Amino acid sequence: MSKFNCMVAQSGGPTVAINSSLAGVISGAMSCDLYDRVYGSVNGILGILENRITDLTALIEKDSENLTCLKHTPAMYLGSCRYKLPDYNDPSASDERFGTAKECYDFIFSQFEKYNVGAFFYIGGNDSMDTVLKLSEYGASIGSDVRIIGIPKTIDNDLMLTDHTPGFGSAAKYIATSLLEIAHDTYIYAVKSVTIVEIMGRDAGWLTAASCLARNSYNSAPHLIYLPECDFNEDEFIEDVKKLLEERNNVIIAVSEGIHDADGNYISATEAAADKFGHSQLSGAGKALEYMVKDRIGVKVRSVEVNVLQRCAAHLASMTDLNESFASGEYGVKCAADGITGAMITVTRREGEYAVDYGYAQIKGIANEARSVPREWINERGNDVNPEMVDYLLPLIQGEVTLKYENGMPVYMDVEHLI
Amino acid sequence: MSKFNCMVAQSGGPTVAINSSLAGVISGAMSCDLYDRVYGSVNGILGILENRITDLTALIEKDSENLTCLKHTPAMYLGSCRYKLPDYNDPSASDERFGTAKECYDFIFSQFEKYNVGAFFYIGGNDSMDTVLKLSEYGASIGSDVRIIGIPKTIDNDLMLTDHTPGFGSAAKYIATSLLEIAHDTYIYAVKSVTIVEIMGRDAGWLTAASCLARNSYNSAPHLIYLPECDFNEDEFIEDVKKLLEERNNVIIAVSEGIHDADGNYISATEAAADKFGHSQLSGAGKALEYMVKDRIGVKVRSVEVNVLQRCAAHLASMTDLNESFASGEYGVKCAADGITGAMITVTRREGEYAVDYGYAQIKGIANEARSVPREWINERGNDVNPEMVDYLLPLIQGEVTLKYENGMPVYMDVEHLI
Repeated sequence: MSKFNCMVAQSGGPTVAINSSLAGVISGAMSCDLYDRVYGSVNGILGILENRITDLTALIEKDSENLTCLKHTPAMYLGSCRYKLPDYNDPSASDERFGTAKECYDFIFSQFEKYNVGAFFYIGGNDSMDTVLKLSEYGASIGSDVRIIGIPKTIDNDLMLTDHTPGFGSAAKYIATSLLEIAHDTYIYAVKSVTIVEIMGRDAGWLTAASCLARNSYNSAPHLIYLPECDFNEDEFIEDVKKLLEERNNVIIAVSEGIHDADGNYISATEAAADKFGHSQLSGAGKALEYMVKDRIGVKVRSVEVNVLQRCAAHLASMTDLNESFASGEYGVKCAADGITGAMITVTRREGEYAVDYGYAQIKGIANEARSVPREWINERGNDVNPEMVDYLLPLIQGEVTLKYENGMPVYMDVEHLI
Repeated sequence: MSKFNCMVAQSGGPTVAINSSLAGVISGAMSCDLYDRVYGSVNGILGILENRITDLTALIEKDSENLTCLKHTPAMYLGSCRYKLPDYNDPSASDERFGTAKECYDFIFSQFEKYNVGAFFYIGGNDSMDTVLKLSEYGASIGSDVRIIGIPKTIDNDLMLTDHTPGFGSAAKYIATSLLEIAHDTYIYAVKSVTIVEIMGRDAGWLTAASCLARNSYNSAPHLIYLPECDFNEDEFIEDVKKLLEERNNVIIAVSEGIHDADGNYISATEAAADKFGHSQLSGAGKALEYMVKDRIGVKVRSVEVNVLQRCAAHLASMTDLNESFASGEYGVKCAADGITGAMITVTRREGEYAVDYGYAQIKGIANEARSVPREWINERGNDVNPEMVDYLLPLIQGEVTLKYENGMPVYMDVEHLI
């Protein structure tokens, strides 16, 4: 039987586990009779269009430890892109660099032919699944045999038809741990204070909800949790903070960057900077809540933006997440070998003790859709999560990584080819 | 021989290692013939004035594992304060809650008598050493035998007469690791960008300098490092960033929150918020540099404020730092037992392979003084550190902690008594 090669790329925002899925694809292909080498396209689909292709099998052949190192390296070994393929159904669609839509797609499939590619894997989130959809539909229309498979990843956990998304568990573990550490930091002063922690997630509140895992026998923080799935009401917020301040010194609040009022307007403070450049800036939800507390309560207040570390702090990854991400990549290869195409790998949770099964779903119901937190997992007041959320989240942050350290620093994969 | 008790308190801003010093004091006292129990004063010196005293020996007797757990718990188990004792030399000095300065001091020493305290340990930074100085001088003036010892801690590393300060190594490891992870996060997009990381340290640049440890065989970031020890020149900064952007896509910059221009003005952007509250806010150095790049270069730019996690992320502590902090606490007890008073514990580095000796220095030359980065450890242009800095820093971040985890979360000491 003549063998095919695989091609793989990564797209969208980084997570701690997206390289683990990449390692899973390489591992899956290396142990699959149908496939020979795995080629990586650098900077997502752009790497195919711009001829930036690297041999990933060679990387592992050089040193098998690279597979483990890759599994633990944050962000994307192959780099990313935010590129949306033109619509091939639109006769006027084109790309100034790559020609008409048809020329774009034909070039991609000619690259597949040149590299003898039998399966293409795209590891990414919502937008990346749009690329999977378009490539698989176009492939079908030209009678291509190349299998097109999406491997899910996102810290937002908002992909449809999967119980959860690789990359989310690690971000959740980082958020919960950070919240607990911030709580320890806050409790030291016996003065009234409010601390607001702004967490990523514009449309879905999963990651902000994960802050609830910081609670333990002595720590009840975060005392309030605001997700974009509920309308934010400023008066109720101030009322709730005031009430908490009557009972305790330190109030700690977790808030999603995407909270909005009943009219759908994002909660943010517009700041017209009075510096010499005359900037006007839209500050985030955390800052906006900080101002509200400062003005309407007048207590000591600080807002903390957790920022990019929530998606790249590989030293605090969830081992469950890394293992599932790896398995998703491997399972993607199995699906492709079984003839599946135009699908995304899914994770299904079993009943009873935590365990998952891998499966796939047709990409059509997934691309460009987003999965929100169910309203019934949020309390009635819209300022906390319900126990169902805790039960859902807890298994996903289990297990710690053992990183290799040299000279006191974690050893990650060399990404010089991206720089 | 009749035994004395010890009393200990913590003061100033949190670090990851200040509880390790506390554990060292408890351990030292428990194995010292002269001392019996260790009492903790809650919220620094205020705990003595307000009668909030806890029995730390009982905590360890209850479960000896608590000593290890304490060693790994971030922030202050005993809470902190920002309280400065009134000047007893000033006849008009008083405190509205505690009476005249003399009444304040007399009450503190009466508490020492009540608890049969033979030694008092104050774990803190510059401001806390002022309390050590005042208490020891007042003690001498009234013929008290209570030994007053300062145990150093600060993430700023700016205490005099010690090679480095407990708490700094862990913060340095956190900064270096975060910088490397942010670099991985940044390299994924093949577009020109500038990332500015703002690091704590208003007067001393030690912690910002530690970002240089993120550099390795493939990562040259941070590409520019700005410390408060050098005047910041905006034109030179823009020139340097432009030049770097000609050579590479992603420029990553580490900047201390305390940088200032040649006239001593902090580099910050004054923002008059145009929201309904009409706020005027002073944004940090990171934001100010972000605006400069946006306006004068026009490239994609982001600023990241590392925030409180650099002083409380115990999951990423330096084992060298935790061990030295513990040893400093133990050594403080030894000094007190030897009759030393009015002194701070110091760490001296041996020549050759890294090892330290503990000693002590009279508190007079330490309190209210600050140690800056030597100018010769910074390059001539004032935008990077020299190899001497790397040699100095590297041993301090060695060794990783093995935390106990339960349910996916680190197990820290219960601080319910503070809440």
